[in-house]
Amino acid sequence: MNLGKTMPMKVKKANGELAVFDEEKIRNSLVRVNASARNIERVIEVVKGEIYDAIPTDKLYRIVFRELKKLRKGVAGKYNLKRAMMALGPTGYPFEKFIGALWESDGFNVRTGQVVKGACVSHEIDVVAKKRNLTEFVECKHHSSNGNVCTVRNPLYFYARFLDIERREVAIPGNTIRKFKGWLVTNMRFTSEALSYGTCVGLGLLSWNFPPNNGLRERIDRAGLHPITCLTSVSRPQKKKLMDLGITLCSNLCERPEVLSEIGIRGSKAEKVIEEAVAVCGAEHPLHARH
Amino acid sequence: MNLGKTMPMKVKKANGELAVFDEEKIRNSLVRVNASARNIERVIEVVKGEIYDAIPTDKLYRIVFRELKKLRKGVAGKYNLKRAMMALGPTGYPFEKFIGALWESDGFNVRTGQVVKGACVSHEIDVVAKKRNLTEFVECKHHSSNGNVCTVRNPLYFYARFLDIERREVAIPGNTIRKFKGWLVTNMRFTSEALSYGTCVGLGLLSWNFPPNNGLRERIDRAGLHPITCLTSVSRPQKKKLMDLGITLCSNLCERPEVLSEIGIRGSKAEKVIEEAVAVCGAEHPLHARH
Repeated sequence: MNLGKTMPMKVKKANGELAVFDEEKIRNSLVRVNASARNIERVIEVVKGEIYDAIPTDKLYRIVFRELKKLRKGVAGKYNLKRAMMALGPTGYPFEKFIGALWESDGFNVRTGQVVKGACVSHEIDVVAKKRNLTEFVECKHHSSNGNVCTVRNPLYFYARFLDIERREVAIPGNTIRKFKGWLVTNMRFTSEALSYGTCVGLGLLSWNFPPNNGLRERIDRAGLHPITCLTSVSRPQKKKLMDLGITLCSNLCERPEVLSEIGIRGSKAEKVIEEAVAVCGAEHPLHARH
Repeated sequence: MNLGKTMPMKVKKANGELAVFDEEKIRNSLVRVNASARNIERVIEVVKGEIYDAIPTDKLYRIVFRELKKLRKGVAGKYNLKRAMMALGPTGYPFEKFIGALWESDGFNVRTGQVVKGACVSHEIDVVAKKRNLTEFVECKHHSSNGNVCTVRNPLYFYARFLDIERREVAIPGNTIRKFKGWLVTNMRFTSEALSYGTCVGLGLLSWNFPPNNGLRERIDRAGLHPITCLTSVSRPQKKKLMDLGITLCSNLCERPEVLSEIGIRGSKAEKVIEEAVAVCGAEHPLHARH
């Protein structure tokens, strides 16, 4: 019997390309969500038992996520972040609210879904954020499926709208707010042309992985602003109901745990959900806060 | 038997609305293409014989066009102009060339399908037209079906691109061309918001019926720049072949009648086509020019 030499295992990426399976990549992604060393090794062991040649990376992801859920829900929720951002769809409104919350956590006074007058025409602006003499106008581009990109069309179109608004604002007599900035935010990634153009005209750009080390993922992790779509102990229809009640973030749930009973989650089940929400966003457990 | 009072005949518009049939409207549209008084009355007579209540305006149009063709082909070709413009599709290239020819007839030096560098990124510009110290950049929006409109998104997007190009051009040392203008041209119509915005930021706007009395229709009639898709004596596949050979206008055909034999139209058939082309664009008949 000829066993031959073991070939390195391959994984198939979303774009169809094959790449060599790299255990370190999984390890790093687990370190990022603060999984314990013991849990990391347990997950890797299961993955190595289930992997096969040319396994889609998506399948690999689901094995890791399933194992993490068994071991520690809060950690699994964080691992789930990119998909949780996509699950904020299909409409753009929860993503708008989410981005509004991100600006609020930076000390801005925020309003979403505003109609803002420009010098020529009026514009629907997703997020208008004010802090002292600065007003920021934020355009949100949400995509519900992986692989979408934000092309140069988006910053071109939005920059013209921003200029029109700015032109009117600076012309208002006695307007003491004298600094304006436009932002384009997406849960996906920008094409390099979109980045070149947006940066060149002075737009703020924020995507899943841009700016490097300060993209959406890092900012969410730092601010503890995980969307409720991260939670593994709540069903998809229940998440939808929570979003309809204005609960977009795990921290919203920590602040208003009573909302769970409104959608029919009570008792020990509610306790479990709150525990997970607390573990995800790192807040003090609201049901235990007074003890 | 109660014959009752005759109700006014209705026509059904493309948007589904009903309107009272107005003989004068047909009369005016025929006057516009220089149909003779006798031909106008003949067409109206046929229309009145075939009309029925709630007849679609599209059907009405086809009756008029069919009768005109019987009476005088050159006139029918002009009547057909709006559809001929739509028939320049499905790609945007023939429309681009057509618009280029319109600018050329105004004394511009024209290049179509150019990549133009901006201060931030490069842009594909449909028509770049130069005359003395003026350069005009033209964006063409062609639609192949009726009822499409050019919304405010189009001038917003194009204005940002124009600004980027202009910013680079004015920064080139020693650039003596100091005047730049952006144009948005469509064979359909602009929404009122698109008109407000475009006018306000100083873009040139040209559509089927804008500016009033100087829209595409009037400019084509004045300049005699009717597209070959106007011709009723050439089949659709033959028109496609002519366009592939760079023949976009009836006048191109008048200048190069020999191109007809290249696509297999010869003898008396070719003579008929040239006669129609001459009648449409009002040029001297090229096959008879030397006699």
